[in-house]
Amino acid sequence: MAGQLYGIGIGPGDPELLTMKAFRVLRSSAVVAYPMSDSGRKLARSIVAEYLRPEQIEVPMYFPFKLEESSQPYYDKAAETLAEHLQAGRDVVVLCEGDPFFYGSFMYLYNRLSDRFQTEVVPGVSCVMASPAILGTPLTYRNDVFMVLSAIMSAEELTSRLAIADAAAIIKLGKHFNKVVEVLKQVGLYDRAKYIERATMPDQRIVPISEINPSEVPYFSMIVVPSEWQP
Amino acid sequence: MAGQLYGIGIGPGDPELLTMKAFRVLRSSAVVAYPMSDSGRKLARSIVAEYLRPEQIEVPMYFPFKLEESSQPYYDKAAETLAEHLQAGRDVVVLCEGDPFFYGSFMYLYNRLSDRFQTEVVPGVSCVMASPAILGTPLTYRNDVFMVLSAIMSAEELTSRLAIADAAAIIKLGKHFNKVVEVLKQVGLYDRAKYIERATMPDQRIVPISEINPSEVPYFSMIVVPSEWQP
Repeated sequence: MAGQLYGIGIGPGDPELLTMKAFRVLRSSAVVAYPMSDSGRKLARSIVAEYLRPEQIEVPMYFPFKLEESSQPYYDKAAETLAEHLQAGRDVVVLCEGDPFFYGSFMYLYNRLSDRFQTEVVPGVSCVMASPAILGTPLTYRNDVFMVLSAIMSAEELTSRLAIADAAAIIKLGKHFNKVVEVLKQVGLYDRAKYIERATMPDQRIVPISEINPSEVPYFSMIVVPSEWQP
Repeated sequence: MAGQLYGIGIGPGDPELLTMKAFRVLRSSAVVAYPMSDSGRKLARSIVAEYLRPEQIEVPMYFPFKLEESSQPYYDKAAETLAEHLQAGRDVVVLCEGDPFFYGSFMYLYNRLSDRFQTEVVPGVSCVMASPAILGTPLTYRNDVFMVLSAIMSAEELTSRLAIADAAAIIKLGKHFNKVVEVLKQVGLYDRAKYIERATMPDQRIVPISEINPSEVPYFSMIVVPSEWQP
């Protein structure tokens, strides 16, 4: 009998923010797969390191991050490796930062494997939820329009969307920080906006937007624009 | 010394979708507070019932759901009750379905108490994340624009926003189901849309949109419009 494939959300960084279900599935699976960066960094693995058992088989999956290179052949290769384990009857858990279906890379494996193997997705705490909690900033009330926007969008695209949002999270800031700040000033949201880096990770950092050095803004940073509504 | 106030996300319904942190905080707090409906239903309490300890003090908080009546005096009263426990040195945990800062009622207590008492928010799995996981529907890719919209909005408001979204979750359907379906047809998203009721709860229900009886759509239902993008 083939093994079962799990995509589990491991949350934003604090190992205690795994759900009890993700923890159970992680502990009971024979194979643990996770992404690995160019430099060999294994962020998802490091988050759950204390939960891994020595007898578990680990499968680091390298996916290139550069735009010049298609990552699809790498997903093909990773899916093939996972399929071999599944065919051999081993349960495979794929670690997903945040939530597996929310701006993650698990979808590419899901699209390749879920029609051939029994697959379950365990949702997780997204950094979009964790950041307001850490900042002490209620995000959305009642019937607010909430948007998640990528900082990679053009100033025009960001402006037209933020103009009809009550609350927003702008993710993947990195080198786009200055552009986003200019847009926020233009649409009158700058005073409400709050910045956070690596929410709930050991190197989490909260800095007033005005004090940030734009050349040091990492990819894993976010600007939260909480709803203005107050009771 | 005063007690500590916690707002914990208990997730969408499955008790195993509490985070390990929410579980720890829940178990170790002397007082457990939760909303109670008109009819005496205690949904949040029922989700975590198996985790409660008999010696914990329970505080049901009644908040009216009707639009005709302001709920603010009820939040005043609940905050007063919780403040008494906190002043007496007892830690108080408030149960929040989904995530405390995401379309919840915890903000109203947070706004009344967090300046007087040490307060920590533990983020949770929102039904917006759980529903795509259950439906087997990846939600957002790469640089998608994602929106959460309340079905209470007018057809015009929904239309203008959905027209510039890559993916969306339309929450609080209830009696607004027909209007939302018409809008989805108009903006060309009907074929992609999926419906789910009470995701991860014992009475969870997944039905094709075309087979739904609009007069039976509950408040706790959602239409997910996943991103179209495919690798």
